[in-house]
Amino acid sequence: MNVAGASVSEALLGAHETRDIVLPNQNEHVSQIAVDIGGSLAKIVYFTSSADRKGGRLHFKKFETEKIDECLDFVAELMKDSRKLLKPGLQPVLKATGGGAYMYQAKLAERLPNVIVQKEDEMECLITGLNFFITEIPYEAFTYSEQEGDAMRFEEKTKDIYPYMLVNIGSGVSILKVTGPDEFSRISGTSLGGGTLWGLMSLLTHAQSFDEMLEMSVDGDNRNVDLLVGDIYGTDYTKLGLKASRIASSFGKVFKKGVKQSQDSFQSADIAKSLLFMVSNNIGQIAYLNAQEHGLKRIYFGGCFIRGHPITMNTLSYAINFWSKGEMKALFLRHEGHLGATGAFLKHTPIRKARHSFSYTENFKPDITETPSRVYGVLEKTNVELHSENQIED
Amino acid sequence: MNVAGASVSEALLGAHETRDIVLPNQNEHVSQIAVDIGGSLAKIVYFTSSADRKGGRLHFKKFETEKIDECLDFVAELMKDSRKLLKPGLQPVLKATGGGAYMYQAKLAERLPNVIVQKEDEMECLITGLNFFITEIPYEAFTYSEQEGDAMRFEEKTKDIYPYMLVNIGSGVSILKVTGPDEFSRISGTSLGGGTLWGLMSLLTHAQSFDEMLEMSVDGDNRNVDLLVGDIYGTDYTKLGLKASRIASSFGKVFKKGVKQSQDSFQSADIAKSLLFMVSNNIGQIAYLNAQEHGLKRIYFGGCFIRGHPITMNTLSYAINFWSKGEMKALFLRHEGHLGATGAFLKHTPIRKARHSFSYTENFKPDITETPSRVYGVLEKTNVELHSENQIED
Repeated sequence: MNVAGASVSEALLGAHETRDIVLPNQNEHVSQIAVDIGGSLAKIVYFTSSADRKGGRLHFKKFETEKIDECLDFVAELMKDSRKLLKPGLQPVLKATGGGAYMYQAKLAERLPNVIVQKEDEMECLITGLNFFITEIPYEAFTYSEQEGDAMRFEEKTKDIYPYMLVNIGSGVSILKVTGPDEFSRISGTSLGGGTLWGLMSLLTHAQSFDEMLEMSVDGDNRNVDLLVGDIYGTDYTKLGLKASRIASSFGKVFKKGVKQSQDSFQSADIAKSLLFMVSNNIGQIAYLNAQEHGLKRIYFGGCFIRGHPITMNTLSYAINFWSKGEMKALFLRHEGHLGATGAFLKHTPIRKARHSFSYTENFKPDITETPSRVYGVLEKTNVELHSENQIED
Repeated sequence: MNVAGASVSEALLGAHETRDIVLPNQNEHVSQIAVDIGGSLAKIVYFTSSADRKGGRLHFKKFETEKIDECLDFVAELMKDSRKLLKPGLQPVLKATGGGAYMYQAKLAERLPNVIVQKEDEMECLITGLNFFITEIPYEAFTYSEQEGDAMRFEEKTKDIYPYMLVNIGSGVSILKVTGPDEFSRISGTSLGGGTLWGLMSLLTHAQSFDEMLEMSVDGDNRNVDLLVGDIYGTDYTKLGLKASRIASSFGKVFKKGVKQSQDSFQSADIAKSLLFMVSNNIGQIAYLNAQEHGLKRIYFGGCFIRGHPITMNTLSYAINFWSKGEMKALFLRHEGHLGATGAFLKHTPIRKARHSFSYTENFKPDITETPSRVYGVLEKTNVELHSENQIED
């Protein structure tokens, strides 16, 4: 993998929110596409093959599911381009996963005539995608802890990964136990996920985007809304090892009987931080409890909730470390939001067969000298360059 | 125990919110008192002994911790009365537990001069209190399920109760594993408790009291704010056994990028129901996961969060039943909010020694023919009448 500046298609990244996408490199054509349509976001992965050499690039994009039409317009454009690589008479294939593959079945057929839409199981795609990233892509999986010097530490790329747990945090949360390349089960989940955080934040703060909400939380002080052990005891609850600084009750300082509390009584930033801690701690705890029950030590966190946000990752890491007394490890991924879409993408027949023969230029070593306010602010989320010995086409 | 109308002191119940308390029966004097001062509520248990026969009554009261002065005025009045039973020169004793016993140590000393305040460990008191209720008081513990004919079913009073789990839901939640009369440990907890529900409800609805919030939720439809599996898939996710009606993401329908959502965009009742489901489901799930890890089948829910509210109890029961596939049992208590205060009360030396010789008039059989909007609306929360063979005094 070569993720140095030169290999990243800036035009594509810049076009993230727009409908019109121009592939800047005339030598490259889209050859395969997959979508993962979730409850809040639709994720797209597509591959552009180079005309001048074997291999090409994987591109990662997101749309709001609410704006499914824009998403499908984008897919239609890609499909139009991909047709150029097909032998006449052949129909292009779109791999589709996530609930929206079912929910928008009719719309997909209508918007993408002459495209074969193949539905793939969501959980299977998550695991296929995750296995691909952690076994094949260097500098992909990392641990995160602000308690340590280098907050972000990359894992060595390895094939010795089973068993492990995946906690996929989208609108809701799915927890999967994975015991082999195609062996997994969904063991648990919770409805307190990304949708809960964004929903409550948009009701309780003035933020209007995910990023604004996350930025806002950075300067917040949750102690203005949360009830701490110290607020109840005046001190630590030593006998139980509960420190005074421990959150006893999220939002426990808000309610006053007979007094209508308005949002203006509290700072948006404080509320945002409390909500972020509440949801992240809770996911971390439920993840730990499930890992404990199933004897799993490695916990990967995926899904669009995390967004490379340090406070979120630190809270999840802290929760896993706290509950497991350091026995378990929380792991994050640079392409965390695209596991399902990548998995669906890899189900394209020739790719799936060929994927273990991909090779990557491993000359990239991220240089992270200070804690960024967002990890991806420094370590730009990038497209993945693939050098395959296999010609890839439909 | 005789909880029929005649034995309940209506004047005392009616005086719940006021500062002035007149003991209506001149034959009865307060002999012992305990307080449990939590993060949101201070609970009081006191005993009045009858002059004309042995034994007497336990009384249960609550104050907001915010109004600690009112609470201590009330305690001071009780203390004044209890002095009448003491031999001259002896000082009355107040048993105190909960964080507030530490937090308000100076205030207790100042407001209650000439009273010996003895602090007792909160968790120990919870268990002492719970053991007392489930082993000694008939028609105390019950199961609740709206799926069955009689939603509320009392457990047989028994001494064969170990091991069991207590999930005590106050402002925050403590989870204890109990293996014998004095053998227990706090195994887990969560900051998403009663304080979270009341705090978020008071920010997001127009309700101004616990009861108003709970009443409001009865008519709410959480599907207007929660994202269901069916909203994502258009149908069940059959392969995983997830029904279309299952909540995939609490508040998952709220966030719309770039659009500030106001509370007025949503019905208070719908928000209230979603919050209630969110918090109750989550507690149920964390309780289940801990019970699973420790091999416990009987889960008692205590604390002031429950308040005999059918939707809350039904949600907790449903969660335990759902996750454990019917292997575990959720149990509720009529005196759920006073476990700690009762435990502290029982630590008064003569009472603790004598408690197993109490007897109760077991002629009370609740008649519940339809699901009440609040269980305690029909089954009035009552004082407990004790007929002890032991004279109780300080």
